[in-house]
Amino acid sequence: MRIGVLGTGVVGQTLAGKLVQVGHEVTMGSRQAGNEKALAWAAAAGDGAHEGSFADAAGFGEVVINATGGMVSLDALAAAGAGNLAGKVLIDVSNPLDFSKGMPPTLSVCNTDSVGEQIQRAYPDARVVKAFNTVNAGVMVDPGQAAAPHNLFICGNDGAAKAQVAGLALSLGWPAEDILDLGDIAGSRAMEMYLPMWLRLASATGSWQVNVKVVTPPPA
Amino acid sequence: MRIGVLGTGVVGQTLAGKLVQVGHEVTMGSRQAGNEKALAWAAAAGDGAHEGSFADAAGFGEVVINATGGMVSLDALAAAGAGNLAGKVLIDVSNPLDFSKGMPPTLSVCNTDSVGEQIQRAYPDARVVKAFNTVNAGVMVDPGQAAAPHNLFICGNDGAAKAQVAGLALSLGWPAEDILDLGDIAGSRAMEMYLPMWLRLASATGSWQVNVKVVTPPPA
Repeated sequence: MRIGVLGTGVVGQTLAGKLVQVGHEVTMGSRQAGNEKALAWAAAAGDGAHEGSFADAAGFGEVVINATGGMVSLDALAAAGAGNLAGKVLIDVSNPLDFSKGMPPTLSVCNTDSVGEQIQRAYPDARVVKAFNTVNAGVMVDPGQAAAPHNLFICGNDGAAKAQVAGLALSLGWPAEDILDLGDIAGSRAMEMYLPMWLRLASATGSWQVNVKVVTPPPA
Repeated sequence: MRIGVLGTGVVGQTLAGKLVQVGHEVTMGSRQAGNEKALAWAAAAGDGAHEGSFADAAGFGEVVINATGGMVSLDALAAAGAGNLAGKVLIDVSNPLDFSKGMPPTLSVCNTDSVGEQIQRAYPDARVVKAFNTVNAGVMVDPGQAAAPHNLFICGNDGAAKAQVAGLALSLGWPAEDILDLGDIAGSRAMEMYLPMWLRLASATGSWQVNVKVVTPPPA
């Protein structure tokens, strides 16, 4: 499959690298084609790895992944262009972490809205699926590194789009039974507001690979 | 131990009832002594169960549990009185869920502050421990109802107070290894902002008994 990955940070590089490894063709997009990090990534990732502008990457992808920081995601997507997103599955991995006020980071949007919802509203023709934002980049592409089962959360308004993202997660190593659909795109609020908990869990356990397994009582 | 439980709702009644069962003496506090629900609870719970005003309950307890709604907790504690809280372990179980704007509820405070922090600031001589707010009342007092292990989160500034709360959790059936200390009282922010996730997990699994188990990779 052709995938456009927006963002050249750790999350973008990690996801894009693994997606090439498992056989996809990926264009990494950044503000301007020729970005140093994107060029270095494409050179190292080998066949099937390309780079370009946000618009190049979005236009290239049958699926587009927003791996930019949540505070700049709407700008990045505006640069990508509505026409390059229309009808496509748009996986939003972002978290609106604001480090400008010191540690711990706050969220630039939360409680009554979320980045996932903002993106879906701004691009009603895109099929937005929030996913992968509740684990670190290494776990996203190597879930087996934790000994016990743990969950990948997804949400979005389009069932077929969510099924496609679940399929992509399968190809990254996530067992189907660990992928948990949290409902419509407003679930982004829950998934983004979970971040302060995730940061505390990482600190308490001393592991950035921390994640959670959802537990319910056995059926009566 | 003598415990004051502030609040006559499901959380207050469930916690107070189990605490009496396991041998504690409990006064349930409400805005005015003689509250109908508190009287009915005390009559049903039997020996060791009393009721009174918020001040009566707080004055009675060696440990005080805030089981009021997060939006009214500061008012309830003001009625309880700073003198009745000074030096005591104050367990804050509240969530600032605001249902006034419809479903899903929003949080009346979050992101840059939390009820747990507000309480600690308002009563600097109380030893505030946030705990139990991330599971439903039934799970608080019967954690064994879930088949697999799952975690109870606590946080607070006073290590001895947290140890005392962990001991209380043990007496309610929580295995010591499942009690996870998330650090100082600012962790309340994480624990309260987790609520939207908890609501989505309950909806996705169809179980109000839902909780999470924290998973990390095995040590290298």
